[in-house]
Order: sequence, then C-alpha cells, then structure tokens
Amino acid sequence: MKKIIHPPKSTWSELLNRNLESHESLEKAVRPILRAIRRSGDKALKRFVFKYDKVRLENFLVSPEEYEEAMPFISKDLKSAIRTAKYNIAQFHMQQKESIKKVETVEGVVCWQKSIPIEKVGLYIPSRNAHIFSTIMMLGIPANIAGCEEIILCSAPDEHGKLDPITLYTAQLLNITKVYKIGGVQAIAAMAYGTESIPKVDKIFGPSNQYVTAAKQLVGKNNVAIDLPAGPTEMIVLADETCNPKFVAADLLANAELMNDSQSIVITYSEELLDSILTELEIQLESSDRKEIAQKSLVQGGKGIVFHNDKQAIEFINAFAPENLIIATQDAEKLGEQVKAAGSVYLGNFSTETAGNYATGPNSTLPTGGYARAYSGVSVDSFVKKVNFQNVSAKGLKRLGNDLKIMANAEELTGRAKAVEVRLESMKTPKPKVESKEKEQQEEPQEATE
Amino acid sequence: MKKIIHPPKSTWSELLNRNLESHESLEKAVRPILRAIRRSGDKALKRFVFKYDKVRLENFLVSPEEYEEAMPFISKDLKSAIRTAKYNIAQFHMQQKESIKKVETVEGVVCWQKSIPIEKVGLYIPSRNAHIFSTIMMLGIPANIAGCEEIILCSAPDEHGKLDPITLYTAQLLNITKVYKIGGVQAIAAMAYGTESIPKVDKIFGPSNQYVTAAKQLVGKNNVAIDLPAGPTEMIVLADETCNPKFVAADLLANAELMNDSQSIVITYSEELLDSILTELEIQLESSDRKEIAQKSLVQGGKGIVFHNDKQAIEFINAFAPENLIIATQDAEKLGEQVKAAGSVYLGNFSTETAGNYATGPNSTLPTGGYARAYSGVSVDSFVKKVNFQNVSAKGLKRLGNDLKIMANAEELTGRAKAVEVRLESMKTPKPKVESKEKEQQEEPQEATE
Repeated sequence: MKKIIHPPKSTWSELLNRNLESHESLEKAVRPILRAIRRSGDKALKRFVFKYDKVRLENFLVSPEEYEEAMPFISKDLKSAIRTAKYNIAQFHMQQKESIKKVETVEGVVCWQKSIPIEKVGLYIPSRNAHIFSTIMMLGIPANIAGCEEIILCSAPDEHGKLDPITLYTAQLLNITKVYKIGGVQAIAAMAYGTESIPKVDKIFGPSNQYVTAAKQLVGKNNVAIDLPAGPTEMIVLADETCNPKFVAADLLANAELMNDSQSIVITYSEELLDSILTELEIQLESSDRKEIAQKSLVQGGKGIVFHNDKQAIEFINAFAPENLIIATQDAEKLGEQVKAAGSVYLGNFSTETAGNYATGPNSTLPTGGYARAYSGVSVDSFVKKVNFQNVSAKGLKRLGNDLKIMANAEELTGRAKAVEVRLESMKTPKPKVESKEKEQQEEPQEATE
Repeated sequence: MKKIIHPPKSTWSELLNRNLESHESLEKAVRPILRAIRRSGDKALKRFVFKYDKVRLENFLVSPEEYEEAMPFISKDLKSAIRTAKYNIAQFHMQQKESIKKVETVEGVVCWQKSIPIEKVGLYIPSRNAHIFSTIMMLGIPANIAGCEEIILCSAPDEHGKLDPITLYTAQLLNITKVYKIGGVQAIAAMAYGTESIPKVDKIFGPSNQYVTAAKQLVGKNNVAIDLPAGPTEMIVLADETCNPKFVAADLLANAELMNDSQSIVITYSEELLDSILTELEIQLESSDRKEIAQKSLVQGGKGIVFHNDKQAIEFINAFAPENLIIATQDAEKLGEQVKAAGSVYLGNFSTETAGNYATGPNSTLPTGGYARAYSGVSVDSFVKKVNFQNVSAKGLKRLGNDLKIMANAEELTGRAKAVEVRLESMKTPKPKVESKEKEQQEEPQEATE
C-alpha cells in the first residue's frame, strides 16, 4: 500500500484518479457481442456462453429440478441468516415507499406524483468475483417492494452449466421465478434487446466488472434504462487515535480481497497510526484466503494518506466521493454530517462494511468511480418511476388562465395560449337558450371535470 | 395527420416507433465538438459559438449591466405571472423534500438515508426551439429547493451576443447568478469538462434537440451525470364523446408547433369523433402563428388512431409511454389509474398541457422517446443523491455477528467474516487487569460508538 504524507493540494487530482480502463477500449471489446446478440438472439447467445463459460447450454432458464437439487446444499443456519437479512433489508426499504400526496396548488388545481413500478426489470448477478446472494437480496427486495411485475435474473453458469445453489435458494425466497444461466456482456445484451428465450426488460440492475459496465452504458443509450455505473468496489476508512487498527485493517482487507481492482484507502491524521494500521494489514494479509487478489488490489489501488486535520480529510473524501466510507473517529457522527458525496457511510468502530453488505438494512449497490457526487445507490426509487398527475378544473383554469396566456405569449408559443383561450371562451358563453349538447357541457364545466 | 383505424396488434410496433435519428450518426456529428472543447477549452468554445451562433464573444458570462438592460423589457404582468408560477411550482416541489427517518432495524443498529444536494449543477436552456423561461423555472426551482451550492445556466446567445431579457429576469429571480451565453453541444461540453471560464458541474439538466441529447449521453458515460434523455416533445390525447374537439385540437396543435419533430397523437373510440377533431385541427392550424413547424411535425409525427375500447387504448398508451398524456374522457380519473408509463398525465377537459407547462406545480421536464417506461421526470430527487448512513453499535454487531459470518463465509469472502470476527473477539476479552489504553477502549464498546 502506498503511503502519502501530507499531500499538497496540487497532487490531489492524481490521488482522486481511479485509473480505470478507457471507455473506448472497453466499448470496442463489448460492441461485437452486443451486435451479434441483437441480430441473432439465442443462437449468438449460445455461442458466447460456450466461449466465455465453457459450457454448451440448450436452455438458459433454470428448471424446477435444478431448484430441487439445490435445496439440500443450503444449511439450516445459512437459511436462517438469509431470512434475517431479508427481514432487515425489507424493513429499511419499506420506508422508501412513497404514498400519494395530493396538493391543491391553486383552488381547483389538484396535482400529485405517483410512484409506478417499472414493469420489467433484469438483475445481473456477477458470479465470478464473489458477491452472490447478497446482491440478489439488495436488488430483489426493493424490486419486490416497488411491485415490479416481471423480475428476471441472469448469472453465469459454472462449467457444469449450473448456478450456485445459494443463488437459486435466494432467488426463490424472493419470488424471482425466471432465472437464466447467462453471464457477462451477453447477459446485458439479452436483457436489453430480448431474444427468443430471454424477455427484453425496461431496466437492468447489478454491479459488475468494467466490461459489463461498459455494456450497460452502451445499451443504456438507446434500449433500456440502467441502474448506475457501478464499477470496482471502493472503500475509504477515516481513522483517528480512537480507532482499533485491527478493525481498520480487517475492513480494508475485506474490501481489497473482493476484486483485483478494488480501491482501498485509509486516511489518518498521524503517520504513527497509519503505520500501525499498515502493520496490522500486513499481518492479516498473510492469513487471507484471497491473498493474491488482495495483494494485487492493494498494490494497484491501495493508499494510506496522512492529512493534517479532519477539515482536509473531509474535503478530500468529498472530492473522491467513495462508494463506502467508514468513519472510525471519536466524533464520527459529527464528521458524518459533513459528508457531501459517498455511497454509504459507516459510523464508529463497530460499523464494519460487512454488516452493511449483508444485513443491517440499507442497500449496498452503490455508485463507484466518483459517481457518488451525483448518483444515489439502489433503493425502492430505482424500481419505480414517478409520474405527475394533475386535474385542472374549469375553476382552476379560470384562476390561472390569464397568467398562462401571458407566459405562453411571452415564449411566443401562441398555440399554447390558444389552448387556454378556447377553454376560457367556452366558459364565457352566455346562457341564451340550450342549443346543443356540446354547449350544455361547456356551461357546466365543473361537473364535467371534477 | 395520418388516420389509423383499428390497427391490429401486429402493426403496433411500427406505431410505437419514434423514428428518431440513429445514435451513430448523431454521435459522429457531436464527438469532434466535445473533443475540441475538452482539449482546448475556451479557445475552442469561442470558435464553436462563432460557428453556430454567428457571434464573436470575449466573455461568456452575462454581466451585471446586461441584467440591468434586460429588466425594462419585462412587463409588470409577465413578472406577476412568473411569480405566480414560481410560487405554485415551489409549493408542489416542496412536498418532494425528504426528511431523515432513522430506523433501528436491529437493536443497536441505526440506519438512515440522507438526501444530500448535488453540489454543482448545470442547466441547459435551449433558446431556439421555444421553451425558455418555463424551463428555467422547472429546473431552477427544484435545484434551489434541493439546496445545490452552485447552479449555472447556459443558453445560446442571439446574433448580438445577448440572451433573452426574460431568461435573465427568471434566472435572477431564482438566484442563478452564473449565466453563460453558450448553446448547443458546446454548452454541454463546457459544463461536462469545464474550461477556463466555465466551471465543471456534477450533473447537467435540460431538454434539447437530438444533437444535444446525444452530447449529454456521451459525456454522461464518463464525466458527469445527466438528468434524462429528453428528446422531441410528445403528446397523446385520449378522447371520448364527452371531450370538446376544439380543446383537443388546440392541445395537439400547441404540441405540434413546438418543434419540427414533435409527436402528436390523438386516440378515440370512434372515427366520427376523430374526424371532428381533425377538422378542428385543420381550422386552427390555418390561424397558427407557427403553422410551418406545426404542419411539418403533424405530417411526420401526427397520428389519429381509433381503438375499439379503452382497454386497447390504455394498452397502447402504456406501450408507447408518452411524455404527456391528456385523458379527456368521462372516466378520466379511473382511466388515469391504469396508466403504467407516462411522464405527466392530465385529467379532464380543462387540464390543458399549457397549464402544466407553466404554472400548476408539477415539473414539465419529462422523459420522452419511450423512456417514461423506466425514467421519472425532473423533481427535487434529481438534484440530490441519497446517501446511506449506519451506526452499528457493539451490541448490534453482537446480535448480527453470527449471521454475518455465516453469510460472508457462504460467499467465500472470509475477509468479510474476519472483519466481524476481530470485533466480536475484542468484546469477548475477559477483564484480567487494565493492560493498555487500547484494551480499555475495547472493553467499553458501546460508549465508543454511540
């Protein structure tokens, strides 16, 4: 891990850089796969599954037998843990459901916003780089709470053409009935365009490597919505002398061992503390089961930075906009209030990211690569669209009419003004005698619209 | 306007098609401008402003003198109308502010979501194709309510190098102090990359033509967030025999005259009603001030469709996912409840889109091109990101710890399990004697974190 002591501000831009592969090279690799699947559907899909997953599949859909086969592999303890996690995650996300609040902005003008579930959503669950069933929960639970009608799931098969039993157990627990054995860029293409066997969806969700992210962004330009550009995982731990270096090192290591390009950064106010954390990290790294990955990512994306004070540290953190931020300092809550850009913030020595990744409740599918400056993580919001409704009565239009005409004319959109005018005119009509059905209606506008 | 009577379902896909230009050709046109401004900043910017707006500008920022010059051009009536609109829009959007609700999902685990304003936002206001100050209000008001720190605005200058006085008045009313005289693709590039004189922003907002939308999507892949892919305006009017054909025709025309590629569709259950609406449309078109544009867009994107019943009509509307939907039927509210995909829904004969475009309250920056299937329109949400916070106490971790370890190990992420383990271990430590400062802290975990 690289040590950086009191970096002057002129060097920050380099420290803030994620060193990701360029979009051009990623897109170049991804485009032919997208194009082939768009053109040839299942036929191309089979070809890519064989190429990348080394298995020939006739059917992508997981069969009822496969679910049955999987169940005995799930221990009672694991089932219980997953159910606890599901309960907590659901509890937290239920708060995100929005009820309809009708507002009468002007007498006779009633407006409201309605959250309507996105009909068809596709969950992409990476299976190579760990993250398995926790991601299914983090996406499937809010999708269920939102009320999406069709939730499909894609994940890469193993060399026997099977999915992990826990994946199947979790999918079933969340009533995700259409699970397909397809991974990588080909899964994104299948869900974006639809094939003979895979339904086209309205929005694609799920974390992924840079290739899958590039594929998501490409299809997102035209065919389908995407959740957020989630790339390699990131963690910043801000620690002061009240931290426990063992805890900090363990969190950094847990993040580092996730993938080769994980970014793990620790910030302290003293080099001494930094050194004791790094020493702990070295010790724990030795006994890591994923030492190779952790080592690689720590060399590439690991940084230990010493800042003079918390003001500098927070400024740096806000500029970096990390996916995950642990604040292990005495005044964690207070510092947390100064965070302007992050995906998820963990406060205090016992708030390990592991807890949030599985079972505390908040979502752990979060923006990376600095996108936390402008993007939110996944929530129930991600699975709905908010549609405006308004009911303008004749009375309401009468009140607003003159202002509307003035503004439409000021924008030189006289057609808009006329759309108001014809209505106001219809209300003005005096009552000589009843002439026609249409006239009658115009004379009783309130009844017709309310 | 093309008449289509009882279209069989096999023909729907053609009716649902927006006939937009391909992304490839748009991107090809846009890329060189983005690249030049990214590389050469203001120098390139000046070149493109001269090329497209035919004016040489030394400074892009609107000066205090220009505001002063503008003010006398705004009539008292218009000022009052704009203030009314501002009040109503603010009233509606204030409802969208979310307060922090802390949830204790497990005893000792407190989680919440906090809406944090996006720091720097850029508003792109198209000035050529109408929409002027109403768009500033629809973007500027929620940005203010969200609490964005820096709100900048870009709009193309006229041939004298000036902006429209109403633009300046509205910007000032909304405390948008940095207004730049730059339009088109070059404005998007400037806000995405930043130049010597234009600050880089975190998110770009604003409706636009297909070129600007293509530019937004390109910069959105890497440098900046974008609001939504808003392209040519769309309206569907669903009308039954209780409608007033004059009203329907006026709304369709108001939409048609907005831009050459507006999409205007009317759906009825009888050809007779459709004919009387189309006759009205012809009459009103004759006296339109923007006849040429309206005629062009009606030929290209105008459709009158007769369906057998409301079930079919609603199915078609949901498949189309229009930006704006007017339901001028007897059971408008009831039908409105069946809408699954639209940007904004207007209910009843007096709910003209003009009202919503200016002053009823809801936002009129909405998803087009079918994106309403998965995207929401602009709201206060668009100007914030929602950040998760959690405070896991020692007690909370003790409760969850075993489940966390089981799940982390099941995902073969043993580092995550260890991050829990080291903390649980620290709690177990018996109390032989006080050995060190660090030990002490570990023995009083609650105090340290709560």
